[in-house]
Amino acid sequence: MNSLLLVAHGSRREQSNEEVRLLAEKLKHRCGENYPVIHAAFLEIANPLIPAGLQKCIDAGASKITVLPYFLNTGRHVAEDIPEIVEAFKQNADVEINIAAHLGASEMMLDLLVGVAVE
Amino acid sequence: MNSLLLVAHGSRREQSNEEVRLLAEKLKHRCGENYPVIHAAFLEIANPLIPAGLQKCIDAGASKITVLPYFLNTGRHVAEDIPEIVEAFKQNADVEINIAAHLGASEMMLDLLVGVAVE
Repeated sequence: MNSLLLVAHGSRREQSNEEVRLLAEKLKHRCGENYPVIHAAFLEIANPLIPAGLQKCIDAGASKITVLPYFLNTGRHVAEDIPEIVEAFKQNADVEINIAAHLGASEMMLDLLVGVAVE
Repeated sequence: MNSLLLVAHGSRREQSNEEVRLLAEKLKHRCGENYPVIHAAFLEIANPLIPAGLQKCIDAGASKITVLPYFLNTGRHVAEDIPEIVEAFKQNADVEINIAAHLGASEMMLDLLVGVAVE
């Protein structure tokens, strides 16, 4: 069963973390057919951290997990930190995990920027 | 004359900063009519920093600048740091500066997430 884990950086402002969890909730309504299980997780500061988030997906019955980095740029977090954490988790878990392109890589990002800029 | 300043966090990976500058270049082609002058700037780590970016807009003839925070969440950077830097700059500049909603606040963000998740 397919599962989606939305991974954000994590903030000291709990409101910011709540935004991410809310986004994951909204995704359930939009991607429920593709991903029966969707959770949010954080690279640092907020809970659940990525390994705990992956485990939540497995506990819910996931055999395949897509990690979606909620990051704009290919900074160190996207290029190194998230892949390393996922790789370490895979060593001890019988599950297939893929990391999707981060948001900043999407062609739609330019449209979104234009929308915000001229609105 | 209207000007747009795309403000990102700034990364130690120069490739990430280049992505932001490239995005600003692309915006020129899409928003040139609304904003004859468009530049990129960074909150920290990379150049130009926000005050230098604002000054570049003024030097190019801007009388009004829209700051567009290239951030996903309303963390401390969006809620406090950027407004404080902009406010401090305004004390010594004869220019109108507005801060646009950050990207994460856009309704299009959910569409973008869905696009990345199911592609």
